[in-house]
Amino acid sequence: MQAKTVTVKLDKHCYDIIIGPNLIAQTALQIKRSLHQKDFHQTRLAVVTDTNVASLHLDTLQTELTRNKIHAVPIVVEAGEQSKSFSTLQTVIDKILAARLERGDSVIAFGGGVIGDLGGFAASIIRRGMNFIQIPTTLLAQIDSSVGGKTGINSRYGKNLIGTFYQPRCVIADTCILDTLPLRQFRAGYAEIVKYGLINQPDFFEWLEKNGQKIFSNGPIRTEAIVRSCQFKAHIVARDEYETGERALLNLGHTFGHMLETATAYDSNRLIHGEAVAIGMTLAHQFSAQLNLINPTLTHRIETHLKAVGLPTQLQDIPGKLPDAETLMTLISQDKKVSKNNLTFILTRGLGQSFIAKNVSPEAVLTFLEQKLAKIR
Amino acid sequence: MQAKTVTVKLDKHCYDIIIGPNLIAQTALQIKRSLHQKDFHQTRLAVVTDTNVASLHLDTLQTELTRNKIHAVPIVVEAGEQSKSFSTLQTVIDKILAARLERGDSVIAFGGGVIGDLGGFAASIIRRGMNFIQIPTTLLAQIDSSVGGKTGINSRYGKNLIGTFYQPRCVIADTCILDTLPLRQFRAGYAEIVKYGLINQPDFFEWLEKNGQKIFSNGPIRTEAIVRSCQFKAHIVARDEYETGERALLNLGHTFGHMLETATAYDSNRLIHGEAVAIGMTLAHQFSAQLNLINPTLTHRIETHLKAVGLPTQLQDIPGKLPDAETLMTLISQDKKVSKNNLTFILTRGLGQSFIAKNVSPEAVLTFLEQKLAKIR
Repeated sequence: MQAKTVTVKLDKHCYDIIIGPNLIAQTALQIKRSLHQKDFHQTRLAVVTDTNVASLHLDTLQTELTRNKIHAVPIVVEAGEQSKSFSTLQTVIDKILAARLERGDSVIAFGGGVIGDLGGFAASIIRRGMNFIQIPTTLLAQIDSSVGGKTGINSRYGKNLIGTFYQPRCVIADTCILDTLPLRQFRAGYAEIVKYGLINQPDFFEWLEKNGQKIFSNGPIRTEAIVRSCQFKAHIVARDEYETGERALLNLGHTFGHMLETATAYDSNRLIHGEAVAIGMTLAHQFSAQLNLINPTLTHRIETHLKAVGLPTQLQDIPGKLPDAETLMTLISQDKKVSKNNLTFILTRGLGQSFIAKNVSPEAVLTFLEQKLAKIR
Repeated sequence: MQAKTVTVKLDKHCYDIIIGPNLIAQTALQIKRSLHQKDFHQTRLAVVTDTNVASLHLDTLQTELTRNKIHAVPIVVEAGEQSKSFSTLQTVIDKILAARLERGDSVIAFGGGVIGDLGGFAASIIRRGMNFIQIPTTLLAQIDSSVGGKTGINSRYGKNLIGTFYQPRCVIADTCILDTLPLRQFRAGYAEIVKYGLINQPDFFEWLEKNGQKIFSNGPIRTEAIVRSCQFKAHIVARDEYETGERALLNLGHTFGHMLETATAYDSNRLIHGEAVAIGMTLAHQFSAQLNLINPTLTHRIETHLKAVGLPTQLQDIPGKLPDAETLMTLISQDKKVSKNNLTFILTRGLGQSFIAKNVSPEAVLTFLEQKLAKIR
């Protein structure tokens, strides 16, 4: 099967996302194209990856690079969210500088969202900006975090509070590599695909209702879902690169989702990001129904689809105890996207009719959360 | 005396540098203008400064801000280059996040080059970019480092290796504040003013030969020199924001200068940046003369002017021992601006006729340095 290309067109940059099977074996070719390099004898790069991806795929990538005489320095960090820290960032930067990579050299982020955020942040601030290439290895990273140029690490005060907007020179999304993902992680990525339908593409959501299950096995449907997701996200990013307006729609399900991730202390045994988004999207629809914006049947329809692929949709799907509604409210008001103490939510007026609701009443949210929690106590 | 304004026009941003006496007392007004804010009751900002500036001027600034009901959180770091470190950066970021400043809030860098680089870097990466305002308090910062948007910290592998390009919303250059500078620091700033003449403005150099001494006391000549310097730098930066071309001319005297700063381990008792640039510019002219690009009389003329204001011009002006020529060469080849192992220098073909010389022979530089060192052994 032929690889597909989604072009991200920004004000100053333009780059391609290449999507298809067995692309790792073409990495050198894609780098060559995106950096406009004629030969590789001077190409030097760092491959930032994590222990999981390294054990499964680093040899394959290194072989491909070495075969093409590309000098690559591997930098392997611990797998997991805790690597999005100041200390890991400093380690990665030190190793890239120790390898004497220069401004025109490249950093490849080879991994999921954590690696993309960490590697991209390092690339953006070393020598005030090195070339950056993404090879996302999770479904979530391929359809979401690798598109849009957000990089960053976490702070003790919250997630992604430190970072930059920095665009890659290209993104290489190998759909075969997704077959090595744990099913739970694959599902979590799928939640963000559903989100794109729910934001403003009702036909895409309907397509997912019919074809969603097929995405879980490799083939043209998986590629098509990734292509359509990247096209959608690239379109929004192109119109709002620095998130001053409609890009906020991408936060559908994320305000409630981040609340739940914080409430569960980012413990991946309890909840991972895409699962939090699945529950968050359901809550956003239920909250919209409570505000009489939509009919509750729509909420059921969405919940049914998310459940069909095995995603959690309710607070009681989260193992362990949750804090009370008041505590959950304080977590919401610490969110990065909160502006001047007014609560902003992405709500909806129908299937694929999401909108940015500013000045949402904190009391309404509190009451809604109390009701939800009451059901599980 | 009326304040003057230099507008920096970049692709996406446009901002003003306000230059004149007693501007600290107008800080609130200038912030209001640059942020297009109607009132201040929601203006929140952090003031990043160092122990020296804090003891001399922080009260004045805080009084002005408080009088205008601007909520300001002071963040005071140790004075000196060692604050351009990962650990100080993390401290500054933590304090800004702890104060719960948001994306639309501001960071003021109130100090010299170190504070501008550190505060600007923090502003650029917190929440992927907060508003940034510069109040430079040294001559060097007013005429050089506050213009152009370079931010950064040092690494064990070299100076300014970690940072971003990030433009301020405005720069407030109070010419009175310079009267509290130690003379040695003032002189060091003056060296960079001379540099602007030597790059490509022979008439400005001639004006400095006549008027340079007057810049050392406050008055219209000082303001004029700062205005002309900012105009010149803003012009170059506007044409080459990301330093891919002619902006490199600003490195006149800096390749030799950085070499000397590294050789003296950035020990400010021995050498400060502007002094290194004064010696570096003299060396760049002497090296140009050795390559038969200029007549040695031009070198003497420049040395005479630098000496007239008390700046060092020769290797023997640096107290203590210097390493041998071979060691100095390795320091040059570690410079950030070295591309693919070819040496790039800014050389000159006459007064104010500097140019970017690529592929300078390392042997010629080595021989030149050996000759210079021979004179002091």
